[in-house]
Amino acid sequence: MSDKKSRQKVGLVPGSLIYTGTGDRREILFTAISYSSTSFEVKNFNNVTELIGYVEKSNGNVWINIDGLSDVDSIERLCNFLEIHKLTIEDILNVNQRPKLEQQEDYIHLVMKMLIPNQESSRIEVEQVSFILKGRLLISFQEKNGDVFEHVRKRIYENTGYVRKMNTDYLLYSLVDAIVDYYFLVLEKTGERLDEVENRLLSSHSQNILAEIHMIRKDIVAFRRFIYPVREVVSQLERVEDEKISSDLKLFIRDLYDHTIRVIEATESFRDTSASLIDLYMNNASNKMNQIMKTLTIISTIFIPLTFIAGIYGMNFENMPELKMKSGYFIILGVMAVVPIVMIAFFKRKKWF
Amino acid sequence: MSDKKSRQKVGLVPGSLIYTGTGDRREILFTAISYSSTSFEVKNFNNVTELIGYVEKSNGNVWINIDGLSDVDSIERLCNFLEIHKLTIEDILNVNQRPKLEQQEDYIHLVMKMLIPNQESSRIEVEQVSFILKGRLLISFQEKNGDVFEHVRKRIYENTGYVRKMNTDYLLYSLVDAIVDYYFLVLEKTGERLDEVENRLLSSHSQNILAEIHMIRKDIVAFRRFIYPVREVVSQLERVEDEKISSDLKLFIRDLYDHTIRVIEATESFRDTSASLIDLYMNNASNKMNQIMKTLTIISTIFIPLTFIAGIYGMNFENMPELKMKSGYFIILGVMAVVPIVMIAFFKRKKWF
Amino acid sequence: MSDKKSRQKVGLVPGSLIYTGTGDRREILFTAISYSSTSFEVKNFNNVTELIGYVEKSNGNVWINIDGLSDVDSIERLCNFLEIHKLTIEDILNVNQRPKLEQQEDYIHLVMKMLIPNQESSRIEVEQVSFILKGRLLISFQEKNGDVFEHVRKRIYENTGYVRKMNTDYLLYSLVDAIVDYYFLVLEKTGERLDEVENRLLSSHSQNILAEIHMIRKDIVAFRRFIYPVREVVSQLERVEDEKISSDLKLFIRDLYDHTIRVIEATESFRDTSASLIDLYMNNASNKMNQIMKTLTIISTIFIPLTFIAGIYGMNFENMPELKMKSGYFIILGVMAVVPIVMIAFFKRKKWF
Amino acid sequence: MSDKKSRQKVGLVPGSLIYTGTGDRREILFTAISYSSTSFEVKNFNNVTELIGYVEKSNGNVWINIDGLSDVDSIERLCNFLEIHKLTIEDILNVNQRPKLEQQEDYIHLVMKMLIPNQESSRIEVEQVSFILKGRLLISFQEKNGDVFEHVRKRIYENTGYVRKMNTDYLLYSLVDAIVDYYFLVLEKTGERLDEVENRLLSSHSQNILAEIHMIRKDIVAFRRFIYPVREVVSQLERVEDEKISSDLKLFIRDLYDHTIRVIEATESFRDTSASLIDLYMNNASNKMNQIMKTLTIISTIFIPLTFIAGIYGMNFENMPELKMKSGYFIILGVMAVVPIVMIAFFKRKKWF
Amino acid sequence: MSDKKSRQKVGLVPGSLIYTGTGDRREILFTAISYSSTSFEVKNFNNVTELIGYVEKSNGNVWINIDGLSDVDSIERLCNFLEIHKLTIEDILNVNQRPKLEQQEDYIHLVMKMLIPNQESSRIEVEQVSFILKGRLLISFQEKNGDVFEHVRKRIYENTGYVRKMNTDYLLYSLVDAIVDYYFLVLEKTGERLDEVENRLLSSHSQNILAEIHMIRKDIVAFRRFIYPVREVVSQLERVEDEKISSDLKLFIRDLYDHTIRVIEATESFRDTSASLIDLYMNNASNKMNQIMKTLTIISTIFIPLTFIAGIYGMNFENMPELKMKSGYFIILGVMAVVPIVMIAFFKRKKWF
Repeated sequence: MSDKKSRQKVGLVPGSLIYTGTGDRREILFTAISYSSTSFEVKNFNNVTELIGYVEKSNGNVWINIDGLSDVDSIERLCNFLEIHKLTIEDILNVNQRPKLEQQEDYIHLVMKMLIPNQESSRIEVEQVSFILKGRLLISFQEKNGDVFEHVRKRIYENTGYVRKMNTDYLLYSLVDAIVDYYFLVLEKTGERLDEVENRLLSSHSQNILAEIHMIRKDIVAFRRFIYPVREVVSQLERVEDEKISSDLKLFIRDLYDHTIRVIEATESFRDTSASLIDLYMNNASNKMNQIMKTLTIISTIFIPLTFIAGIYGMNFENMPELKMKSGYFIILGVMAVVPIVMIAFFKRKKWF
Repeated sequence: MSDKKSRQKVGLVPGSLIYTGTGDRREILFTAISYSSTSFEVKNFNNVTELIGYVEKSNGNVWINIDGLSDVDSIERLCNFLEIHKLTIEDILNVNQRPKLEQQEDYIHLVMKMLIPNQESSRIEVEQVSFILKGRLLISFQEKNGDVFEHVRKRIYENTGYVRKMNTDYLLYSLVDAIVDYYFLVLEKTGERLDEVENRLLSSHSQNILAEIHMIRKDIVAFRRFIYPVREVVSQLERVEDEKISSDLKLFIRDLYDHTIRVIEATESFRDTSASLIDLYMNNASNKMNQIMKTLTIISTIFIPLTFIAGIYGMNFENMPELKMKSGYFIILGVMAVVPIVMIAFFKRKKWF
Repeated sequence: MSDKKSRQKVGLVPGSLIYTGTGDRREILFTAISYSSTSFEVKNFNNVTELIGYVEKSNGNVWINIDGLSDVDSIERLCNFLEIHKLTIEDILNVNQRPKLEQQEDYIHLVMKMLIPNQESSRIEVEQVSFILKGRLLISFQEKNGDVFEHVRKRIYENTGYVRKMNTDYLLYSLVDAIVDYYFLVLEKTGERLDEVENRLLSSHSQNILAEIHMIRKDIVAFRRFIYPVREVVSQLERVEDEKISSDLKLFIRDLYDHTIRVIEATESFRDTSASLIDLYMNNASNKMNQIMKTLTIISTIFIPLTFIAGIYGMNFENMPELKMKSGYFIILGVMAVVPIVMIAFFKRKKWF
Repeated sequence: MSDKKSRQKVGLVPGSLIYTGTGDRREILFTAISYSSTSFEVKNFNNVTELIGYVEKSNGNVWINIDGLSDVDSIERLCNFLEIHKLTIEDILNVNQRPKLEQQEDYIHLVMKMLIPNQESSRIEVEQVSFILKGRLLISFQEKNGDVFEHVRKRIYENTGYVRKMNTDYLLYSLVDAIVDYYFLVLEKTGERLDEVENRLLSSHSQNILAEIHMIRKDIVAFRRFIYPVREVVSQLERVEDEKISSDLKLFIRDLYDHTIRVIEATESFRDTSASLIDLYMNNASNKMNQIMKTLTIISTIFIPLTFIAGIYGMNFENMPELKMKSGYFIILGVMAVVPIVMIAFFKRKKWF
Repeated sequence: MSDKKSRQKVGLVPGSLIYTGTGDRREILFTAISYSSTSFEVKNFNNVTELIGYVEKSNGNVWINIDGLSDVDSIERLCNFLEIHKLTIEDILNVNQRPKLEQQEDYIHLVMKMLIPNQESSRIEVEQVSFILKGRLLISFQEKNGDVFEHVRKRIYENTGYVRKMNTDYLLYSLVDAIVDYYFLVLEKTGERLDEVENRLLSSHSQNILAEIHMIRKDIVAFRRFIYPVREVVSQLERVEDEKISSDLKLFIRDLYDHTIRVIEATESFRDTSASLIDLYMNNASNKMNQIMKTLTIISTIFIPLTFIAGIYGMNFENMPELKMKSGYFIILGVMAVVPIVMIAFFKRKKWF
């Protein structure tokens, strides 16, 4: 969730092709799925030349998924073959983009952030996915292995839903929809974390709760920055010219837009809740503290006058008549018993406990 | 008031028909009311086939109310019969929608949240209601038994107001109006809760008041999310083409819009008030605490010098002339009486109590 | 300043005529003033039939003022005679409207809130006034006796200003202007209350000041809700078609608009000030408290070591050489005098007082 | 900086001519400067009749400056002679206007607030200036003697800059520019006050600093209200029709607009800074207080156990073996020396000082 | 980062040429780089006459960079030669401009703020750069030596990237891009400072951390004011007419716009983070303080009752039976051992530590 254009990029020619991510320099993997309503084929390539050959021959719907962006040369060769603009290629390689949609003369370029909740820790992994939709060819660029598209692949393989019956514009929609679906998972996780914190707050006060709320807040703030532009992206998608995105999809995209709005609203309300929890925490902490201090101070206050009385009869004056009284000691003990009772009664009447 | 698309939905084909609510899997109940200015008829069906038969034969105004969304098959059959789009059916079944209005080629789809204040607890029950207005047929989909439409039904049965004289577009307006009317009830309840909290705050300070304000705030925040989109919905309703919503209704819808604005404004002002109450509470709590601490500290402060004096004459020096003075003890007692008087006078002059 | 649609209204037919105010059920009073540039006539009616007869005969400028809305029948008869829409009548009777302007085919309906500062208490009385301007007939509906229009009436009687020379559209403007003028009085009052609180804050700290600021804030918040819509109302008034509001009035309405803006700006700045005063108060309170606690703690801190010294020589060891020294006592007294001096010097150097 | 329409104005006929300022009722002073690119003439008048005579004869650029608004009659006569609308005259006399520009059929009416930093105190004097630009006649109305136009006059007298070469529309621009220039002076002053407060805050904590920040804030809030409308005024000035303001001036006015934006941005950032300074102050104050309390409490905490030990050996039991030990006293003194060392070591390890 | 129009400017003729910066009065340095796709030439001039001669003869792409604005005469002569408007020259010399783009009849005037992170301190140097693009001549005005354009120069010298192949409009874009690139460096620095502060906060609490956050906040606020207008500037650049900025550049400028948005979003999120860190700090500080106070108070509370017991048996009553008991002393010692154990158990059960 870093916001820097990496230092080595500063001062470079705009359109310089530098991979800014941290993915390790492993082999790039190309997966091509061609499909029609009647059949489908999945092929893996390790070599961009073979892939280009394959693309040249294909003439139906093809989805090429690319895992790994560190092999800049291969990606450049593929993009040049497809006549993708230099600045678009730069954007694909620079994984610090904000979600956006760019409509070029003969292709659409769409950038999204894929959020994958890590099942073990409560942290969320962020990965940039870029899409190029050019005619009936859809290319998705991912940094790492592993994505949120398994359900879509399954639908292609098993021919469920509309995906096989329609073209790659519907596939693009399905993939974006899958990404937004995962946002709901992230929201659910965040909601659970907030609920858990709230419960702990309402039951008793725990030391490290504030740092935890701080962390949740930070996640929410980062999350907001990924999803706010998505609204705009989806809204632009709705307005893309009909040759690129079939008008039959408008209803689906509208539905996606509604999902996006719900994600945003939920995020906003989580932000609110977290702020409110901080207030609650602050108050709980100070309430508890005050309770302690009050009790302790009351104890001190009760004993200080008693100690004073004891102090008086500890004085060594020769002429202190009380000291010679036979029951003097017991009378004073009685007084010492009465004083705290009176004080406690006074405190009670003042509602100090 | 949850914001998640339930986990089982993630990855499904868009348009998948899954009921996401928690309503129990009981029988679905269809109630059809057909009416004209001269007559009306109420029929109950447990079976969607019979209902479809009934609808096919009817040719006037018919309002079909459906209680229960768990029987997905029946709902799908009914919707398919009426040529409702798959995505609309998905929205009807997914009870985590935000209020919205969608205008399709030959029907309107409107989603509202019904808020029913629970008379016993101070909590508010939320239920999603979807409406389909297609020609002179109006269908309302509810999750559970019990709604806010009793007054509208009564008006149909007793032929009061305009409802019998006009078509189902007016009926749709009346039902939405009934829902918004109930928002005022919720507002009233919330206002009462805030007033009650304020009174308790201004009279004396109670332990759990902050958690209570926190709860009210949470309700207000949730409420806001249901009613903000309603403004937009009503505003869109005003602009629906005349074939679907008669232009005679514009004035009524304008009136409804005004109600919505008032609901929103009141909610905003409640939000303000609750924030202000938290401040007031915080201050009250710290004021009270300070008052206690101050009093206790003053008591300590008065006795500590006295104890010191007693301590001096408790020393065992052989040569302490005062100890041998006959009236030494009494002089010191006098000094001990004067010291607190001087101190209290000093505190008073400094306005410390 | 309540925001509820009263409970008995929920579920009623829209357009149901129910008076929602708390005005007592006394006689309704109709006052008709007809005027031209050359003459004027004032007549009172207790009976709506007579009034309708009078209106039927009149053909110049007539202003009918109605005090009392509880006699729903009479108001309905009058409105029906004038062909006022049912929903408009409902709005007139429902005194929980927000200020608004509605332009119907042949009349204007304008709702304002009249704010009358109570001269004794610092509270402000709120009363809804509705206006119907239909041709040269202007009707004003008030809940109670007493209003802010005395100056306008005087101008009619004494033929000062433009009012007699122009038509009822100018009269409507004059009445709205009179209402807005009173807003300045309310502002002045509020400003005085804030100044007074500020002075008390800057001089010394008073116990109940926060509750008072809270009350002022609440008033400001309520006030805002009455005046924000007024801006829109006046702005709409400027754009009313020329047949209803003569274009000669545009300049006057523009002036009124400026007043409204000033009222709003002043209100916003009062809100700011009150928030700032709360901060100041909070700080003052905690400053004062800290000052007290510090002083008291310093006193304790000085005496505790002294008491300890006294305690040492109060021990009963048989072999304590100092006790036998002739001047032991006086040496220790000297030490006891030096200790606080050293401590105070230390505190002073650390700038603790 | 008061926001009231003065009490005596409420209820008056709109257009009533009442001077609402506090300027003393001294003689009104008219200064007429007529100028062309080749010559100029300055004349003073005490009498409006003479002035009107002078204006009737003049046919070039004339700037009439009026000091003093209390002589309502003279101003009314002058304005009537120039055919100024009643409401405009009312606005000129009412010095509680917000800055605005009104374009009438044959003149422009522009209201500005002149801010003159008082060189002695840190307070800022506010004075309303109204301008009437009618053809080649420019009239400026001021409440008091003394203004920010000296530099402009000098440029006329010495024929520097464009002012003599151009018409009164340029002169109007120059005067408004001079007023905005002074806003920068006010900003500079405010910036210095904030810097000075910040320095005091960062070095040490001073008692009355919060009241001072409160005062600065109040000034900034008041200042905002004067300058925000100026942006709109200047923007409208740019769009005035060419007959009134020559299109040659557009570039100058654009420049003026930029100045206005800078003034507004600076004001906003000062507001931010002042809020931030309050936080800093609050924290400093509480830090300092905490530091003191901690030190004092540590002193008490060290002596309380010591006093307890002394108390033990001050008990009068007959059988207390330690008392009879020869070195008992010295052992106990040793223990009393060790206890605080141990405690201080413990506090240090816990980093309590 | 000052916001004042320097005092000496107030009252001057608009268009007065005064250098408002603090650059020292050293020699002005003109550097002219003429380039085409095949060759380039770099020349330095100390004298404006020579430069003008050079410009007159040149007919290709020429970039003139000017270091030093204190020699007002030379700059005026150059600008007059190029027929630059007086107000533009004034803006070039006044280094308190906000970023802006002004489109004149035959040139573009663009103002940017160059932010150069000082490698030693964490402070950021701000320098205003103005650009004039007139046909194929680009002039950049800088206050001081040293800029962020080295990479661009290198690209010209080494003929990498597009810069030599395209005209000065592309060069202008490249220079602005270089400036915005440096904003990312500043962001990175700020991010590191915030991270460092956060780490210190989460590990332990340091005294001066708040002043540091305050400083970072101030920098962020200043930074915001420089970059917010840049968005508008770049957006206007996109819409400049094609004769001035070739339409081939639109895509590059769009890319630059995206960078600007990312800078702004990052700044906003830093603002959020810094606010959140202040809260965290406040809480940490008060938590730590409370922890100390609680411990100390508990110690006092334990010893005060013990001291009281000791006080009782320090009284000198003649008849105190316990004193005569042989084991009285030891019993009391036992009691004194039990009391704190009971108290600690009580505190533990109440979870006070």
